[in-house]
Amino acid sequence: MSRVRVQSFSVSIDGFGAGPGQSLAHPLGVGGEGLHTWAFTTRTFQRNVLGKEGGATGVDEDFAARGFANLGAWILGRNMFAHSRGPWTDDGWRGWWGPNPPYHVPVFVLTHHARPSLEMEGGTTFHFVTDGIEAALERAKAAAGERDVRIGGGAATIRQYLAAGLVDEAHVAISPVVLGRGEPLFAGLDLATLGYRVTEHAATPHATHVVLMRG
Amino acid sequence: MSRVRVQSFSVSIDGFGAGPGQSLAHPLGVGGEGLHTWAFTTRTFQRNVLGKEGGATGVDEDFAARGFANLGAWILGRNMFAHSRGPWTDDGWRGWWGPNPPYHVPVFVLTHHARPSLEMEGGTTFHFVTDGIEAALERAKAAAGERDVRIGGGAATIRQYLAAGLVDEAHVAISPVVLGRGEPLFAGLDLATLGYRVTEHAATPHATHVVLMRG
Repeated sequence: MSRVRVQSFSVSIDGFGAGPGQSLAHPLGVGGEGLHTWAFTTRTFQRNVLGKEGGATGVDEDFAARGFANLGAWILGRNMFAHSRGPWTDDGWRGWWGPNPPYHVPVFVLTHHARPSLEMEGGTTFHFVTDGIEAALERAKAAAGERDVRIGGGAATIRQYLAAGLVDEAHVAISPVVLGRGEPLFAGLDLATLGYRVTEHAATPHATHVVLMRG
Repeated sequence: MSRVRVQSFSVSIDGFGAGPGQSLAHPLGVGGEGLHTWAFTTRTFQRNVLGKEGGATGVDEDFAARGFANLGAWILGRNMFAHSRGPWTDDGWRGWWGPNPPYHVPVFVLTHHARPSLEMEGGTTFHFVTDGIEAALERAKAAAGERDVRIGGGAATIRQYLAAGLVDEAHVAISPVVLGRGEPLFAGLDLATLGYRVTEHAATPHATHVVLMRG
């Protein structure tokens, strides 16, 4: 059965999923790169995101690979797609990833501002959803069919889906950095009351991997 | 030189240092016991706290042992000493630990309500400090001499000392549990701006150990 998953979402020791001051120069927020050291090194990231050979195997890679397995659709918050804010302008922006993004399935981008879908190379089409997280999930599930829907982020988007009880499984990687400020992942969420518990826990020199599941 | 240290302070995946509803029946808050699984198993905890032989060695034990090395004084928030709240009454309470507490040095308890010092067996004396965290630290440093001062907790006490820039080194153990509610350790703290960075990171099946230092 199709599941709704968060995968490979990195947070700092102090709970932030991105640094402060996200911008074109700092897409992950200031200092946010350190969150992703564990992922950058993996074979999956090197191949799927950078198009390169090589990369590490092991526990980090295993989690990175799970993050791309059996996906039929993604959901992203707007900031994951663009650095601009407010109404869309004709600025030629087509996402952070170049002409062939690493998704290869439909991607539903949450935004308050409508715009036409954007078909990219390699099977990725960005759809822009203005009627909220539940509508986006319905469309993503319809697109995914028997496969899963991955909530890609950012932190605020994941937090909304967790709070609404719509996430079946969440893999979070706690990286050994402090950010001090930024986008908190769990702030204001009562994960225990929402029914989540830790079902997996594995640590590497780069990160601590935690899987939360409901029930 | 004498240092001010936090050691072996356990937090959940979602950042809580104790569960909600601390009471006599639940001194660690509801569900809070799971935070300390890593420590319970160690030789140091078995010997120093329970007075038993045995217990595990390894990374968890190494961190637990460091927590008791070279200490000349402790500082505790009131809830670490007692379940009662408000003015002290003559209820016979002498701490959670029985007649011979595991400190064996002066312990300064932060409280809004004065009471005479309480001398226990084995070298532990509880002093009750009503004039704030800086006064308590001055007294603890004077008592500790060349040795270190450990800020024992709880979360609110550690948070205050971190926010005031008074902690030299903090060892936090992230345990693979979610609590949902309780006492957050890092909420409202900008650790990066306060000058803390991660200087050590080691993971075991029971916890991820992180050391934060300033500068």
